[in-house]
Amino acid sequence: MRSIIDITDLSVEEISELMDTAMDIIANPAKYAHACDGKILATLFFEPSTRTRLSFEAAMQSLGGSVISLPSADKASSSTKGESVADTIKIVNCYADMIAMRHPLEGSALVAARNSSTPIINAGDGGHCHPTQTMADLLTIHRYKGRFDHLVIGLCGDLLYGRTVHSLINAMSRYPDNRYILIAPEELKLPDYVKEMMDEKGIAYEETTDLNKAIPQLDILYMTRIQRERFKDPANYEKLKDSFCLTVSNMDLAKEDMCLLHPLPRVNEISAKVDGDPRAAYFDQALNGKFMRMALILKLFKDNEEETASMKRGVTRHFVPHYDFGYKGAKINISKCTNPKCISSVEQELDQIFVNGRCIYCESKEKE
Amino acid sequence: MRSIIDITDLSVEEISELMDTAMDIIANPAKYAHACDGKILATLFFEPSTRTRLSFEAAMQSLGGSVISLPSADKASSSTKGESVADTIKIVNCYADMIAMRHPLEGSALVAARNSSTPIINAGDGGHCHPTQTMADLLTIHRYKGRFDHLVIGLCGDLLYGRTVHSLINAMSRYPDNRYILIAPEELKLPDYVKEMMDEKGIAYEETTDLNKAIPQLDILYMTRIQRERFKDPANYEKLKDSFCLTVSNMDLAKEDMCLLHPLPRVNEISAKVDGDPRAAYFDQALNGKFMRMALILKLFKDNEEETASMKRGVTRHFVPHYDFGYKGAKINISKCTNPKCISSVEQELDQIFVNGRCIYCESKEKE
Amino acid sequence: MRSIIDITDLSVEEISELMDTAMDIIANPAKYAHACDGKILATLFFEPSTRTRLSFEAAMQSLGGSVISLPSADKASSSTKGESVADTIKIVNCYADMIAMRHPLEGSALVAARNSSTPIINAGDGGHCHPTQTMADLLTIHRYKGRFDHLVIGLCGDLLYGRTVHSLINAMSRYPDNRYILIAPEELKLPDYVKEMMDEKGIAYEETTDLNKAIPQLDILYMTRIQRERFKDPANYEKLKDSFCLTVSNMDLAKEDMCLLHPLPRVNEISAKVDGDPRAAYFDQALNGKFMRMALILKLFKDNEEETASMKRGVTRHFVPHYDFGYKGAKINISKCTNPKCISSVEQELDQIFVNGRCIYCESKEKE
Repeated sequence: MRSIIDITDLSVEEISELMDTAMDIIANPAKYAHACDGKILATLFFEPSTRTRLSFEAAMQSLGGSVISLPSADKASSSTKGESVADTIKIVNCYADMIAMRHPLEGSALVAARNSSTPIINAGDGGHCHPTQTMADLLTIHRYKGRFDHLVIGLCGDLLYGRTVHSLINAMSRYPDNRYILIAPEELKLPDYVKEMMDEKGIAYEETTDLNKAIPQLDILYMTRIQRERFKDPANYEKLKDSFCLTVSNMDLAKEDMCLLHPLPRVNEISAKVDGDPRAAYFDQALNGKFMRMALILKLFKDNEEETASMKRGVTRHFVPHYDFGYKGAKINISKCTNPKCISSVEQELDQIFVNGRCIYCESKEKE
Repeated sequence: MRSIIDITDLSVEEISELMDTAMDIIANPAKYAHACDGKILATLFFEPSTRTRLSFEAAMQSLGGSVISLPSADKASSSTKGESVADTIKIVNCYADMIAMRHPLEGSALVAARNSSTPIINAGDGGHCHPTQTMADLLTIHRYKGRFDHLVIGLCGDLLYGRTVHSLINAMSRYPDNRYILIAPEELKLPDYVKEMMDEKGIAYEETTDLNKAIPQLDILYMTRIQRERFKDPANYEKLKDSFCLTVSNMDLAKEDMCLLHPLPRVNEISAKVDGDPRAAYFDQALNGKFMRMALILKLFKDNEEETASMKRGVTRHFVPHYDFGYKGAKINISKCTNPKCISSVEQELDQIFVNGRCIYCESKEKE
Repeated sequence: MRSIIDITDLSVEEISELMDTAMDIIANPAKYAHACDGKILATLFFEPSTRTRLSFEAAMQSLGGSVISLPSADKASSSTKGESVADTIKIVNCYADMIAMRHPLEGSALVAARNSSTPIINAGDGGHCHPTQTMADLLTIHRYKGRFDHLVIGLCGDLLYGRTVHSLINAMSRYPDNRYILIAPEELKLPDYVKEMMDEKGIAYEETTDLNKAIPQLDILYMTRIQRERFKDPANYEKLKDSFCLTVSNMDLAKEDMCLLHPLPRVNEISAKVDGDPRAAYFDQALNGKFMRMALILKLFKDNEEETASMKRGVTRHFVPHYDFGYKGAKINISKCTNPKCISSVEQELDQIFVNGRCIYCESKEKE
């Protein structure tokens, strides 16, 4: 059963195919209004994310399908009774034809996919992956810039914990001749393992703390929120925060065709006065997210058509072919993951597998 | 974009037109069963109100449309991350064709409407307005009394904080020769600014604390709940509460064709024994509320058809023409609203506007 | 108006008719895909139960109907304002054509049914009844064993508080020549009143604490969870718990065609390693639950067709014929129920009725 855990589960070809579908949906919505008639999407949000949940639900309904939902796990979920992710998924397989899941633990989406007889879309597994956000970013870049290469990309704010930033770098690293300007305070610089990946691939980047000096060179500026909690020293936060908030005067220094992105929600890191600027693309991102989710839902139903059909109806429906890792020839090792946010820290009777020195669930490195 | 914030946003003609539609829906439901096929309503409840939310959702589904919902904001909402109402609305514009919003802060619905590219229905903004409740009251009066004029209207219970009471007076004040009997304890008498409005318009009213003395004269009795929290002195609450609870013996004193209303939920202010009385119309109010909401949804789609069509599909969809206040020639003043429950106390970068000495958001008076 | 409070509200004939419908739904889903077009089901969960709620919602949507939902009462419900079950139901009657309700208090479903103008399905009223769970159990037994008689049925775990266990015994007691092996620790043995019922009906059973000794004889093994909270002495829990957890080695002792059931959610009382065993039927139970709920929804609409049609549309719709108890000739007594978990302990102005010495709501015995 094909599922989407990470943006890199999709080839460059598949991403451009998804964007073609999304553009066609925008041009001819009526053509797709009944594409998923009679199908049910389950949105399982063990951690609340209104915007992402509503986007998936609107996407499915715009395709003629219907939705069942766990809007947030607090009390309302069996998981509070200590049920495993695997069990929850096997049950929801009985009710839904596809599952979009958000869960606080890293690797939970992979555990879901390995136990599911219906396609899983990872709507965020802790700080690990959130592929449909990146798909929204990509369609927006495509619509504003018309290309994914030869771009100067500024990433500003919390680059240390910013899951969306890491995921965007991963996605864009597959296209040639992009250059990155990493704009962040010392405390929140891009993690070494991401820079190592960029070095290996020979991707150009420079680091700075000065937004104004960086902005004139940029084709794309991706803003993220800086959270007080991230700072050991609150005074330091107070000192820095304003230098990473974008105002009309910052925008005056930018190229006329720069594309300004933000995963949202925003607090004050972009002034509302900037919203009217034609370069402000962050609300378009949300809209594009819905269209890309529609395209992805269509693709996953199509890719899994044969396998779903081949499953007998009724009681046998939940018997699950394992999610294919494509680990042929990799160095596999069974040992305990030490990341407290890894799903393997709580999931019952879960095999602890490391491939090439990384936990298959949260991808954190194996301790020597 | 036309939105509904307050009952007075609708002209007397529009209200009777809405009632005609509602009566036709009741007579020919099948005729409307697909009127909103393919349309999505978002119900955003930043404060829980099961009955109002379910009523909107049933209304939309009875028109063939579908629903995406934020059932309550506690934890499940981006607003907990400090997102502004304006941003939330601009995002939900990407997912839904119409938005029904309940929010604890006064004026939040206006802020939503000013930032929305889809029609907003105010489902309650704090203690400020709740127009669809009043629409339910009006259809019920119409169906029981056949007129909106020459009525003796009793309002009983908490007239100080009772938003529904103020809204009903506003709505009925536009019809001739109605007389009001205000039945409330001293602590909970109708606020002066409402009485001033009535005096200006020459509307007759008298005040009393004696339900039994008032009831024989009434064509309509509108009961509301008295909450212990409203009393400085709890002993006082205990002393008073029963004198504002309606029993079968009170009803024996009423006219044979009196219409008994209550916005619900009720606790004990009307005895369950009264429910069987043909004059008890409060459950009909809930049903009429659904029909009026159906009529309103249809009207807003119709009124905004042209403007919605004119907006280009896709990325530009969310660019918003400002909600038209019709402030031509009014005295406009920019200063800070002092009402702690006003949306302007928290919403980021919101212009503080007073028109003719009242805050445009919460309508509270400007401090000299 | 016909409602389903308890599994015994359905005759043996009706249950087999429901199973025939369910089997036909499994064989020909398309035939039923529009059976409930235009109909609305309300899922009112005053206590969370994700699995049960999603199952009802998927069932209704698979029949072409739509859903309005109260996913959980915490804060999001009017009931927090102290509204009675009767009032809530009368309101939801205005919005929905059928109601599935879960409520923490025993007898709440009966109060709902007595006040409803639409069919009520009891989705669990405290520790009292949960008929659709039992319907799932029965369809699974039917599909695995092909019969309801001449079976040796093992019930293991918490037999004292296990509502599903009592309900299954009630349902199976109507079929001939079944024998029960009750496998539980001393603290959690089957209550006397259930054993008395079995004795009266001459149903064979034996009690043991040894799972391994019992398992080889069983045609069916119904596992339930043992909760630490149930034990006065935690040490005792620690000592016992593992002897009531099923592993692959236990299964090695079982018949080749034994059917292993569990109402779920499971924590550790069945090892995940057992899931692959063809005798493990507990995920099938969940799937069968959806099909039986579909069959029940269809049946209740059919059974109530005439009565629903006869109700005038609009304001009179909520006037309710009382739920028929069939108490002809029973000894009826009016006195206060002493069960603190009985709905009569909180519901306003509710008649306290005992029939043949049992509270009609929670069925607990009248104190002398």
